[in-house]
Amino acid sequence: MKSTVSRRDFLQALGATMGAGALIAAGSGLGMMPAPAAATTIDHGHLGRSKRRIAVLGSGISGLVAAFELQRAGHEVTVVEASHRPGGRVFTVRHGDLIDEIGNRQYCDFDDEPHLYFNAGAARIPSTHLNILRYCRELGVELEMFINESKTAWIQDDNLLGGKPVRNGEYTANLRGFMAELFAKSLTQAELDAPITEGETESLMAVIRNFGDLDEDLIYRGSVRAGYASGGFLEHGSPREAIGLHELLRSPFARQVLQADEGETGPILMQPVGGMDRIVKGFVDQLGDRIRYRAAVQAVMMKSDGVDVTYEQGGKQHQLSVDYVFNCIPTHLLTGLDNNFSAGYLQALGHIRRGEAYKGAFQAKTRFWEQEDIYGGITWVNAPIKQIWYPTHGIHRRKGIILAAYDFGHGMHFTNLTQAQRVEDMLAQGEKVHANYRQQVEKGVTIAWHRMNHMLGCAARWTDSYRDLNADEAHLMDTLIAPEGGRHFLIGDQVSRHVAWQESAVLSAHRALATFSRQLEMAA
Amino acid sequence: MKSTVSRRDFLQALGATMGAGALIAAGSGLGMMPAPAAATTIDHGHLGRSKRRIAVLGSGISGLVAAFELQRAGHEVTVVEASHRPGGRVFTVRHGDLIDEIGNRQYCDFDDEPHLYFNAGAARIPSTHLNILRYCRELGVELEMFINESKTAWIQDDNLLGGKPVRNGEYTANLRGFMAELFAKSLTQAELDAPITEGETESLMAVIRNFGDLDEDLIYRGSVRAGYASGGFLEHGSPREAIGLHELLRSPFARQVLQADEGETGPILMQPVGGMDRIVKGFVDQLGDRIRYRAAVQAVMMKSDGVDVTYEQGGKQHQLSVDYVFNCIPTHLLTGLDNNFSAGYLQALGHIRRGEAYKGAFQAKTRFWEQEDIYGGITWVNAPIKQIWYPTHGIHRRKGIILAAYDFGHGMHFTNLTQAQRVEDMLAQGEKVHANYRQQVEKGVTIAWHRMNHMLGCAARWTDSYRDLNADEAHLMDTLIAPEGGRHFLIGDQVSRHVAWQESAVLSAHRALATFSRQLEMAA
Repeated sequence: MKSTVSRRDFLQALGATMGAGALIAAGSGLGMMPAPAAATTIDHGHLGRSKRRIAVLGSGISGLVAAFELQRAGHEVTVVEASHRPGGRVFTVRHGDLIDEIGNRQYCDFDDEPHLYFNAGAARIPSTHLNILRYCRELGVELEMFINESKTAWIQDDNLLGGKPVRNGEYTANLRGFMAELFAKSLTQAELDAPITEGETESLMAVIRNFGDLDEDLIYRGSVRAGYASGGFLEHGSPREAIGLHELLRSPFARQVLQADEGETGPILMQPVGGMDRIVKGFVDQLGDRIRYRAAVQAVMMKSDGVDVTYEQGGKQHQLSVDYVFNCIPTHLLTGLDNNFSAGYLQALGHIRRGEAYKGAFQAKTRFWEQEDIYGGITWVNAPIKQIWYPTHGIHRRKGIILAAYDFGHGMHFTNLTQAQRVEDMLAQGEKVHANYRQQVEKGVTIAWHRMNHMLGCAARWTDSYRDLNADEAHLMDTLIAPEGGRHFLIGDQVSRHVAWQESAVLSAHRALATFSRQLEMAA
Repeated sequence: MKSTVSRRDFLQALGATMGAGALIAAGSGLGMMPAPAAATTIDHGHLGRSKRRIAVLGSGISGLVAAFELQRAGHEVTVVEASHRPGGRVFTVRHGDLIDEIGNRQYCDFDDEPHLYFNAGAARIPSTHLNILRYCRELGVELEMFINESKTAWIQDDNLLGGKPVRNGEYTANLRGFMAELFAKSLTQAELDAPITEGETESLMAVIRNFGDLDEDLIYRGSVRAGYASGGFLEHGSPREAIGLHELLRSPFARQVLQADEGETGPILMQPVGGMDRIVKGFVDQLGDRIRYRAAVQAVMMKSDGVDVTYEQGGKQHQLSVDYVFNCIPTHLLTGLDNNFSAGYLQALGHIRRGEAYKGAFQAKTRFWEQEDIYGGITWVNAPIKQIWYPTHGIHRRKGIILAAYDFGHGMHFTNLTQAQRVEDMLAQGEKVHANYRQQVEKGVTIAWHRMNHMLGCAARWTDSYRDLNADEAHLMDTLIAPEGGRHFLIGDQVSRHVAWQESAVLSAHRALATFSRQLEMAA
C-alpha cells in the first residue's frame, strides 16, 4: 500500500504520465450555472397586435417555440420541415424509428416498450434552464431526475491499473487524499518561514483533512470514501487499499474528476418521463396541421412587402408568400439555398462552422449495471467511445437502453466506420469495463449528427474557447440577430453564446419574438 | 472583489473565524460506500427444513424481513407490533396519519394527494445497499432517484454575508478557487528548494488549476462555476464577483462543503415512488393477517423447549407459546419487560444507548423553490433546523412537502418545545433562506423520534466514533448476536455497525436467519 507521497514523487509521477497526455474534455459543453433569473416574459399583447402570415423554417426547438408563440398571438403560421419528423436535434429513438444518417440509414429495432428509448440528441435539462422548464410546465411535460455523475460508475483507461476498471469514487477519493496530503505538507513546511498561531494551523488543517480524509498525522492512508474492502454494515467497514498516486496519474482523468461536480455538471439535471421528444410532442400537439413534413426549403427570396419561400414536397414545388420568416435552418445549409440575402448577411452566415458529435446505444438484455450497484451516471473510458451512460429511469425493470459511445469534440473516430464496425468497436471497448458486455447487449443504433440528413452538423462553432466572441465575431453575431430586411429572423442555438442547449434555442426565439413585437408596435 | 489571497490571509481568516466554531457534522450517518458485493444468499432449503412456531416481536424492517423469510420457508409466524402501524422508523406521513409522539400527538392534515407525503424516518436508499434494493425488486416497489446534493440550494449562516443565503455552488466554487490558489502558490514556492522540470510543473498545475478554476497566472478571480453574474446563453456569461475568503470562512460550512460528494453522499440515492413505506406495504401484503397491531409485549420468558411471549391487546393479556423468537424491540424497552434473560445478555442489552433525531415538515402552497431553480437537494442552515429538503418528486405540480428541520446529533433544540413553538421556530429560521417562507408553507408536522411511543429513541449508539467497537463493546455485540438460550434472536440495525439504515436491519435479520438455519440443520 502506497500510504504516503512526497512532493517530489507527486511531481515526478505527474510529469511522467501526464505531460504528454491529451486533456480529455470534461464534458460536451454541459450547461454552466447561470445566475438565478426569471424566465423571459413574452409581451403577448403587442405580439398579437395584428395578424400576419408567418413561415417558420425548421421545426427544431427554436422553430417550435416561435411557431407556438406566434400562433398563440393570433398569427397565421406555417412550419416547413425538411425531415419526416419534427424536433431537430431533440430526437428520441424508439422501436421502428428511422435514423436518417446519410450513408447509414437505420431503423431502430429496440423492443416496443415505453422505457426502451434513446435520447440521441438533447438528453439533459439543467435546473437553471428556466425557459425550457417553463415550457415543460406549460405543455404538461412530466419531468424526472437525470443522474449524470455516479461514484459507483467506472473509470477505464488502458494506462491505468493495467486497464482494469476502477470505480469513479475510488479513483476520486484516492486522488483527493494524496492532493490533500501534499497540500497539508506544503503548509506545514510553510509554518517555518511564516509563523502562524497554533489555532490557525489547526483550523486550516481541519479543512484540508476533511477534503482528503487524512489521518491525524495528515497522511493519506486510504479512505472508506473509496469503498469498503470488507464490512460496513454488520462488521466494521475497512477501507480498501489505496491506489498509489503514480498509478492514479497514469490517466488523464486525474485532470477532470476533481471538478466533476462543478460548473458544467453543477445544476441538478432532469429529463422528461418517456423521452426528450415529449417536449417536441407538446409543441406539435398545439400546432396541429400547421407543420408540413418532408418539405425541403429551396429558396428564400426577400421582397419589399414580404418573403417568398419555395419548398419541395412530394416531388412538387410549392410557393409560400408570407409577411415574415422565422428560420432555424442550419446556417451552412441556408447559405446553399437560393436567396437574395445581403452580402453582409451571407458573409455572417458563412462564418459559422459546424461541430461534430457521435452517439451510439445498445439495448441491454438485462440491466447488468444494477448488479454492479450502478443506477444512472456515466462511466468514463479513455478511448473513442469516451462514455457509457446508464439509464436513470426504468430502475429494476428487465431491460434498458444504454448509451454506449459519446464521441464529441474534434476528430471523429466513428464517422467513417460502417455500422457493423461501429457496433464492433463499441462492443470491444465496452467489454473492457463490463464482463460479458458483448453477451448482454443487442440491437445497436448509432448516429453521427454531422452526417444526419437535413442537418449535416451539430453545434454551431463560433469560437473554440469559452471566451467571449472577439470584436469581429460579435459584429457577425449582431448582423445575424438583426432581422434581414426587417422580415427574416434567424433563430436557433446557432445564434447564441451557448450552443447545443435547448435553453439557448428557446431564448433565441424569444429574442426574435421581442424584436418582432417591437416592430409591430412601431408599425401600429 | 477579493481576487487573490496570500497564505497568511488565508490562515488568519481561518483562525479568526473557525477556531472556536463547532464542527457541524456533515450528515446524519449517511451510508458509506461499501465494497461491491453480492446481496446475501438465504439458504431457503435448510431454513424450511421443519416447521416451527415463531414469534416476531416488532414490525420494523428487520422484523418484517425475518417474518417474510420465515413464512416463505413454511414456518408458522406471528408478528406482534405495539403500535397501530407497521414499519418502525420507516414511516411515511400522509393526510390523516397519526404521529404518536408522547406529549405531542398529531394528526397530519396535508392535502390528500399521492405526492404529498413526508418520509419522517428512512428517506434514502443508497445504490450500494444491495439487500434492501433486492427486496424492492422482489416486492415490486417502484424506485425513483433521490437528489441529496444540489448546487443551487442554499447555505445560510448568520455569520456569513450578514445572514444572506448563498447558493451552495457559489460558496463551493469560491472556496475551491482560493484553496487551489493557495495550493498552487505553495508549490511554486517549493520549486525553489526542490527543482522540478518545466513539464512536471505544468502538469501538476493543470490538475490544481482545473480543481479551482484558476486563471493562467494561477490566481483565483472568480469562476462561472459559481454562477453567472449575467448572460450565459445569448450574451457571454460573466462570472459573479468572488466572495472573499475571509467571508467564506466565517461559516463552519467551509469544513464540509468540499467533501459533500464524497463518502457519505457518494452513492446514488433512491426513494420508492409514493413514499418509503411502500417497502413496508410490500412485506405486509405478503404477511396478511399474521401481524397483530396495538399488541404490546409485556413478557418474554425463555423455557427449555420454547419461549412464552405475553402481550397486551385490547385491554387483555394474551399468551403466545412459540419455539423461537425474532425480536427487534429497541433494547432499552426490551430490558424493561418481564424476562428471564441471562445476566450477561441483560448487561449487553443495557449497554446500548439511544440516539435522538427530530424532523419537521410543511406542506408548501406552491413549489416556491422551483422558482429559485431548486429541484430537490438540501439547503444547509447553521441553526437548529440544520437542513431544508426539497422534494425530488412531483416536479412542477402545485404543492409539495418540504422537510423544514432535521436536527440530528446531540442536544435537541426542539425536543421540549410545544408544537406551536416548533412550528414558529421552523418558520423563523426558514424565512432567513426563502422570502415569504411563512406565507408559502402550512400544515406543519413534527416528530421527535426519541419521544415516539413504543420507540423512545432513534439510532442505537454503540460508540461515538466511526472507529470499530472496542474489545469490550465487541464482546457485548457478540453476546447480543448469539441467540439467547438458542431461541431468542435479537435483530435490527441496533445490532449492527451501521445503525439507522434499512440495509443494516435487513442484514441483521439475514444473519439471524442464517444462524437459525444452521441450528435446524444440526438438529435434523
